[in-house]
Amino acid sequence: MHIRVINPNTTAGMTATIGEAARRIAAPGTHISATQPDAGPVSIESHFDEAISAVGVLEEVLAGEREGVDAYVIACFGDPGLMAARELTRAPVLGIAEAAFHMASLISTRFSIVTTLGRTGIIAEHLLEQYGFRHHCRRVRAAEIPVLDLEENGDAALSRLIGECRRARDEDGIGAIVLGCGGMADLTDEIAREVGLPVVEGVTAAVKLTEALVGLGLGTSKHGDLAFPRPKAFTGRFAHLSELTPRR
Amino acid sequence: MHIRVINPNTTAGMTATIGEAARRIAAPGTHISATQPDAGPVSIESHFDEAISAVGVLEEVLAGEREGVDAYVIACFGDPGLMAARELTRAPVLGIAEAAFHMASLISTRFSIVTTLGRTGIIAEHLLEQYGFRHHCRRVRAAEIPVLDLEENGDAALSRLIGECRRARDEDGIGAIVLGCGGMADLTDEIAREVGLPVVEGVTAAVKLTEALVGLGLGTSKHGDLAFPRPKAFTGRFAHLSELTPRR
Amino acid sequence: MHIRVINPNTTAGMTATIGEAARRIAAPGTHISATQPDAGPVSIESHFDEAISAVGVLEEVLAGEREGVDAYVIACFGDPGLMAARELTRAPVLGIAEAAFHMASLISTRFSIVTTLGRTGIIAEHLLEQYGFRHHCRRVRAAEIPVLDLEENGDAALSRLIGECRRARDEDGIGAIVLGCGGMADLTDEIAREVGLPVVEGVTAAVKLTEALVGLGLGTSKHGDLAFPRPKAFTGRFAHLSELTPRR
Amino acid sequence: MHIRVINPNTTAGMTATIGEAARRIAAPGTHISATQPDAGPVSIESHFDEAISAVGVLEEVLAGEREGVDAYVIACFGDPGLMAARELTRAPVLGIAEAAFHMASLISTRFSIVTTLGRTGIIAEHLLEQYGFRHHCRRVRAAEIPVLDLEENGDAALSRLIGECRRARDEDGIGAIVLGCGGMADLTDEIAREVGLPVVEGVTAAVKLTEALVGLGLGTSKHGDLAFPRPKAFTGRFAHLSELTPRR
Amino acid sequence: MHIRVINPNTTAGMTATIGEAARRIAAPGTHISATQPDAGPVSIESHFDEAISAVGVLEEVLAGEREGVDAYVIACFGDPGLMAARELTRAPVLGIAEAAFHMASLISTRFSIVTTLGRTGIIAEHLLEQYGFRHHCRRVRAAEIPVLDLEENGDAALSRLIGECRRARDEDGIGAIVLGCGGMADLTDEIAREVGLPVVEGVTAAVKLTEALVGLGLGTSKHGDLAFPRPKAFTGRFAHLSELTPRR
Amino acid sequence: MHIRVINPNTTAGMTATIGEAARRIAAPGTHISATQPDAGPVSIESHFDEAISAVGVLEEVLAGEREGVDAYVIACFGDPGLMAARELTRAPVLGIAEAAFHMASLISTRFSIVTTLGRTGIIAEHLLEQYGFRHHCRRVRAAEIPVLDLEENGDAALSRLIGECRRARDEDGIGAIVLGCGGMADLTDEIAREVGLPVVEGVTAAVKLTEALVGLGLGTSKHGDLAFPRPKAFTGRFAHLSELTPRR
Repeated sequence: MHIRVINPNTTAGMTATIGEAARRIAAPGTHISATQPDAGPVSIESHFDEAISAVGVLEEVLAGEREGVDAYVIACFGDPGLMAARELTRAPVLGIAEAAFHMASLISTRFSIVTTLGRTGIIAEHLLEQYGFRHHCRRVRAAEIPVLDLEENGDAALSRLIGECRRARDEDGIGAIVLGCGGMADLTDEIAREVGLPVVEGVTAAVKLTEALVGLGLGTSKHGDLAFPRPKAFTGRFAHLSELTPRR
Repeated sequence: MHIRVINPNTTAGMTATIGEAARRIAAPGTHISATQPDAGPVSIESHFDEAISAVGVLEEVLAGEREGVDAYVIACFGDPGLMAARELTRAPVLGIAEAAFHMASLISTRFSIVTTLGRTGIIAEHLLEQYGFRHHCRRVRAAEIPVLDLEENGDAALSRLIGECRRARDEDGIGAIVLGCGGMADLTDEIAREVGLPVVEGVTAAVKLTEALVGLGLGTSKHGDLAFPRPKAFTGRFAHLSELTPRR
Repeated sequence: MHIRVINPNTTAGMTATIGEAARRIAAPGTHISATQPDAGPVSIESHFDEAISAVGVLEEVLAGEREGVDAYVIACFGDPGLMAARELTRAPVLGIAEAAFHMASLISTRFSIVTTLGRTGIIAEHLLEQYGFRHHCRRVRAAEIPVLDLEENGDAALSRLIGECRRARDEDGIGAIVLGCGGMADLTDEIAREVGLPVVEGVTAAVKLTEALVGLGLGTSKHGDLAFPRPKAFTGRFAHLSELTPRR
Repeated sequence: MHIRVINPNTTAGMTATIGEAARRIAAPGTHISATQPDAGPVSIESHFDEAISAVGVLEEVLAGEREGVDAYVIACFGDPGLMAARELTRAPVLGIAEAAFHMASLISTRFSIVTTLGRTGIIAEHLLEQYGFRHHCRRVRAAEIPVLDLEENGDAALSRLIGECRRARDEDGIGAIVLGCGGMADLTDEIAREVGLPVVEGVTAAVKLTEALVGLGLGTSKHGDLAFPRPKAFTGRFAHLSELTPRR
Repeated sequence: MHIRVINPNTTAGMTATIGEAARRIAAPGTHISATQPDAGPVSIESHFDEAISAVGVLEEVLAGEREGVDAYVIACFGDPGLMAARELTRAPVLGIAEAAFHMASLISTRFSIVTTLGRTGIIAEHLLEQYGFRHHCRRVRAAEIPVLDLEENGDAALSRLIGECRRARDEDGIGAIVLGCGGMADLTDEIAREVGLPVVEGVTAAVKLTEALVGLGLGTSKHGDLAFPRPKAFTGRFAHLSELTPRR
Repeated sequence: MHIRVINPNTTAGMTATIGEAARRIAAPGTHISATQPDAGPVSIESHFDEAISAVGVLEEVLAGEREGVDAYVIACFGDPGLMAARELTRAPVLGIAEAAFHMASLISTRFSIVTTLGRTGIIAEHLLEQYGFRHHCRRVRAAEIPVLDLEENGDAALSRLIGECRRARDEDGIGAIVLGCGGMADLTDEIAREVGLPVVEGVTAAVKLTEALVGLGLGTSKHGDLAFPRPKAFTGRFAHLSELTPRR
């Protein structure tokens, strides 16, 4: 089984971190390839960054389709391009926010999210709403760490994250914590150890969930509203998408 | 007041239709400029088309900012790039789905949506949910008309639309109909006449709502989660966005 | 265009304040007439005050219909008599709570309400629920100012309001504030200046929204549940309503 | 225990019907007095009728307070003036829609409402929403009978009602039916017999619920938002309310 | 009328307390019999305790059916076995959490729950959700008292409860308090006196509600999903249930 | 990894069917043991059957704990005893309704459920609500097949199921179907082939989800409301549970 883990930003260090975390958790027969778009933001901290990153995500999926990839993970906590990516393939496609919410709700009745910047909280709120987990999440918390600080300023970032997770544990009436950024994929174990309650991280959760779906023979439904997009012309810089769009 | 009406697809005929509808409804002092992206899909009929179109929408907003535009309308019923566009400006930005839902809920207690293709219904459902109108919409109906048929095959499309609107009127227990595509902007009056209940169309609704917001001195809040994106590098084909992102 | 702004209470000073605020914001071609009922409470601070005031509101609408008024604004934050008023006319009718919620949700993702007395918070909660904005409002706050203090004790009231608005800005994770009383219509600018984020006030919001609706040729739907009331006898002190009820 | 059953319309025949139904169901020690306002609509079939009727309802409650009434029932299915009435007294006040919803949800998992005119369905929908029963009600059905036909045209009305109730039973997947008009209070038994599943009627339900509350020593809370209205002046035709408003 | 009040735990002292509270509140013609299962947990403080206790509750209902009992109350705040019990009888069956929520929502717009242990809060949350009262309950609070402390350590428990109720009154913006444990049935009056706002207790509420339902001739619907279970074999230790299941 | 699949009913044939389906889908390193309670109903078709079956489920979990089982699946579509079972172990515990809802929502935007008997639909509705999937499920359909017919009358049952699934596919606007009974575990492939859209079955879904959770090192949270039950005495026939309750 070949899972393509797509880091929607263009910071190679983060792609490596995410890829490693994915590989560590993958089942023996699972091949992980971690990629990132050619073009886009170096980190994703706003709706704008997300919208731009979605193009690269979709091109990575189209590339994966040519290579026969079996499943996709979109490794940014806002799940950029998720619905669009599902239209492009029969394979399962998972977002890491989505994956983390599902897993957290299976081991606890209520969870909190600890994310990077407060301004991205609204993205998590919209996803909780759309996916059905609004009432399972007690609170969206931010450690107010810029995403790239997780790479560049690791110790300080980790210690702020642990502090915020402890406050979540003590104040929110929860059973689990969801980490709100793909860049935290390598910190999960240490945070869990320090905080002492289950900590769910989306990259790893998504890898195991896609393995599960592939194992079940389940992929994105092509009946109804996630069917392949109708073939059509794209113009200008996106003209290549007229070709790339899958057509069967 | 200068309102930029952005047609997110790249079909010039539709941009013209939308622009004219906007001009017809605009107040005397309002200047309407209708634009379309350089690059993108010729019509928007899926999440994929939407995600790609969002890039062009955002670039149009960035261009508008350099020109001193006062307000923006995103003239596709899926409101592509809406939240991201809001981050880029202090001006109001409205989506046409959003605008139509608001207006319909002010003149009726319950409405139905009549859109083009059934597969886009889920996009409307997600927006109704996020904006708060889930319980105000009785039903999302599709006439199963491809978007460009509105341009190329106008009479047949119109007659199918009128048929579906009549069924909505007679079966759904509603007070108003929302037309679910920017390309229907020039059909509103005829449909309303044939169907005999208020028909709300998003382009026109959005123009009047943005005039209202500008009149009130209200623009997109820069306090909190719609603040300008944090400045950062974009790579590759999107490198120009490192420059373009507003920074005050 | 003739907009009738109805102050549901019988305090002439407040009618004047509201009328002036409406006139200041109205478009050049808009004529504002501000009225108040002959009879009713001098201020509205409870469900009881609201229920009594609704009669006067409805009589003002019936009077407006005889005069050919084009649109109505009900200028009390509980929107007293709103659904009933809509039944009486083909014109648009807007409540100021409703108008403010709509406008605030177009420029921010989440807002808080700052109202007069805590006991009226439940009225706002019920309206948020009915209109669909429950999840857009983070918190309903009260400055604990009796409504008439806004008239009689302006400076102290203003300073309490500003204090409460600042707390909302700093603690609630919001992008905008909704002012929760028609009597605050003349304070918006000063509050906005002091607090530094968008402040949405209902009277002005409603005037611009009704202009927008009239501009669109949209009025209250007479198809379905907002149709004119069935003609019928009223007895006693309300016998005149047998005559007044519109009948076409 | 003295329960005042207030018929919000001014049709004496309906007051008598309602009073009798209440008396038949009341416990031995319960005294029922059925009253109607001096002034108002002869039937209630719209938001407008409701808003006007609320004044009479509230005056009946104020009169009841002077007489030492122990509990109130508002016997119209839209529960006109309910929240306002609660502010006026320490006694329990129940609406009949509310009472019927509560009782139906205790003996079935899902119910349907069968009411008079389709246009009043929205009133029921708003109440279901506010009270918390939206998901317990499968469908709001109308027999399209004007309210006074229940008085004047009893047999035809009854047969239409039975027909609609049977359709509800067979098509809606429910366990109980709620009758949607106070004027049906004397038809419950016959309908239940004909339809063969529990039929909940609001007047009788409300009488038993108020007996239950009084038996528990529970009355409307005066802590918080249902406290007595703040004393204030009312003007014109409502000047007497300045006096009447309770003040302890 | 014979109401069987079932204490789902096996602590006789609590059965006595509950029975007495029920008798004190019952109408003259009501006979109360308080019972407890032969087997089960001595107190109920978890989902596990609840699940085990449900068996005893259901056997008590089956026993009651043989004795001609007219109505049942399940006197534990998690309403264990409620839906199942309803299937076994035409009589009304009420849970005390359910009963308390209904009554509290009739005398206040918002209430808080004060329960024993924090860990049981999730049970109350799930019930609020299923019954429709999620938005009527501001907060679920726990005094962190083990259930049996109410029996064995009464004074300390009472004083903690009163403290928590006062905090609810002062901080939650509520009109009433719901006591979250059947074992508090004898403390209601004292708590209400100390706290000064309506305090709703479930055992007493349920007794009066079942009297009301019986008075109305309403019992659990046998049309649809609460019909008698299909007859079938039970094996092993539960073989006797093959016999006991009602069959008409 | 040792997964215990618990068939909550006592029909050995169904345990075998479920166990085989689980084994076919399990990963190479996964050991499946399929068990059933000593005592309980031979099939589960009501709340009553469910409540009784929960005891056996919980005893199977306690037995599993003594044997060092790594994860549990409760293989009945009502998820009987799920929350209680979670309290008993650090291992993951999944219900099959839950598992199927999660998986279906990852490959489609909307699904329908096809279950056995209409009367069990309410159980699915309550679970959808509690888990957060109410809006993802378009419709709960029943083929009106008694559970044991799946064993004893396989061909007729299969053909009814396929018919109902086809209607779901054609009428419901969905992307996937959830099979609503553990006894359908061996029919999934054939139904999927006949119906032509993804069919999600709970036993298999739950096995893969538990493998995923175990792979992630995630188990039921012992922080907060799913902590081990407080140790306590159980009486009578349940006295052995005083011993069995886990205590660390």
